Amino acid sequence: MTLLAVGSPAYDTIETPSGRAEDVLGGAATYFAYAASFFGPVRLVGPVGTDFRDADRALLTDRDVDLAGLTTKPGETFRWSVRYGKDLKATTLETHLNVFDGYLPEIPKTFRDSRFVFLANSAPAMQLRALEQLASESFTVMDSMDLWIEEQRTDLERVLRRVDMVILNDEEARAITGQSSLIKAGRELLNFGPSFVMVKKGEHGTFLWSRGFFFAAPAYPVDTVVDPTGAGDSFAGGVMGYLARAGIADEQHLRRAVIYGSVLASFCVEEFSLEGLKRISRAEVDARYQEFLRFTAHPG
Amino acid sequence: MTLLAVGSPAYDTIETPSGRAEDVLGGAATYFAYAASFFGPVRLVGPVGTDFRDADRALLTDRDVDLAGLTTKPGETFRWSVRYGKDLKATTLETHLNVFDGYLPEIPKTFRDSRFVFLANSAPAMQLRALEQLASESFTVMDSMDLWIEEQRTDLERVLRRVDMVILNDEEARAITGQSSLIKAGRELLNFGPSFVMVKKGEHGTFLWSRGFFFAAPAYPVDTVVDPTGAGDSFAGGVMGYLARAGIADEQHLRRAVIYGSVLASFCVEEFSLEGLKRISRAEVDARYQEFLRFTAHPG
Repeated sequence: MTLLAVGSPAYDTIETPSGRAEDVLGGAATYFAYAASFFGPVRLVGPVGTDFRDADRALLTDRDVDLAGLTTKPGETFRWSVRYGKDLKATTLETHLNVFDGYLPEIPKTFRDSRFVFLANSAPAMQLRALEQLASESFTVMDSMDLWIEEQRTDLERVLRRVDMVILNDEEARAITGQSSLIKAGRELLNFGPSFVMVKKGEHGTFLWSRGFFFAAPAYPVDTVVDPTGAGDSFAGGVMGYLARAGIADEQHLRRAVIYGSVLASFCVEEFSLEGLKRISRAEVDARYQEFLRFTAHPG
Repeated sequence: MTLLAVGSPAYDTIETPSGRAEDVLGGAATYFAYAASFFGPVRLVGPVGTDFRDADRALLTDRDVDLAGLTTKPGETFRWSVRYGKDLKATTLETHLNVFDGYLPEIPKTFRDSRFVFLANSAPAMQLRALEQLASESFTVMDSMDLWIEEQRTDLERVLRRVDMVILNDEEARAITGQSSLIKAGRELLNFGPSFVMVKKGEHGTFLWSRGFFFAAPAYPVDTVVDPTGAGDSFAGGVMGYLARAGIADEQHLRRAVIYGSVLASFCVEEFSLEGLKRISRAEVDARYQEFLRFTAHPG
């Protein structure tokens, strides 16, 4: 079924203990769309500047990412620079929203029937604007970040009330609920509205709550994390790409989706920027999925 | 089959965000033996002082823990006091080894045929002395800590060469190997000798390496951790208690053992000292094991 991502591409400058990459393609929507594209076509809505490179556009269209909703605006593409320490904790050095600043999405008419929708991390007002333009029967999923939790709480709660699932990391889940226990935080997030709460714990795996079940999975084990950038969005891309392909977001498919998310994130972090995703095929995704099943299998 | 634990009981004074407990029963060998006792009898070898309380002795014998190897020595029982911060990180306030200082275990003749043996965290020289007295066909497992890794490295490596399995936490695994990647560290520990390497990551679950397979499991989710003391030893007790009961430490049983370990640790941390373990029955252990299977099940 149709899958839509709303969010921004970016150009990132990244320093990690493994090296440095300057002005490389990044952005939540980009990682998401590329990861999801292993399962089927993706529609993308977001803003870029006049500096957005043709090669990067081609990279996405070659993966069957429909860029009809990618708006070119006067100015520069969103830029982010970050340094990861030895423990791989991120310190943001610079953020320039550029054309992403105050952006409000216009969903092309041909995209409005999308059945699976991912609202990448952005201002809640932007996410709400996207939701208002969409068919009500779509399965909608949001991400967020500390900035919006602290500064745009009311709007953020509005989005939470309207989406079917929220995907957050552990710190964000704790920040929204004020619960230091992650187990309580995840369960409590259901009270904000979503039917499903997925909490990413990076190398430590994923928790998934619904009103009817709980699922816990470790992360796919990665020998060396070269660049953590985009891991969360690649995870979401794997999750949503798989669900959209299956056409259903029930318990069994959501459990599988978590594993696909973990697999896509594991490829993402093995190289800088999108390089880890660019070098693999769907067969390699499936091979790692099968490996994951062996790693976690127990005889009951 | 027969299960032996070598290590020390202790009296702990514990402060956590949930409260305070003074001079309560603790010690690696105690937590281990109590947790393992849900699966069958346990033999205990270790030192206590003349202050060791009859009630604590009775608590263990009532669980079919054989105290024939518990030596009473002049002086006080090992004492430890600790403060856990909001993030539940431990700060040791005081350590008094007392009768544990320089202790070298004498394994009673009737214990020397034990088929499953756990060498709780203690000086490597003490662990070696225990190993020398045991039948060579026993399945031996060791724990350790940062102090021995830093200060008694040569002896520690000697123990590693002789045991069948090592159970460590993530920081200890990194410290021994010098690998910041836990995935590399765990695998590399196999080169030190053991056939199996189990790495505990607290609330984040467990990794298990052998030369033939890898297993990853999340931890049983706990709403509120009241007191983390003894979690690792209760985990080891669940692992070894289950294996000794099964009488075999092959891949399938080791995978199940990890889950039993996680279940016992989850009960342990829900209350101070041994209270969380004291209030449960084997039926509750099995119920939580089944719950764990549901939490981690995926349709493949």
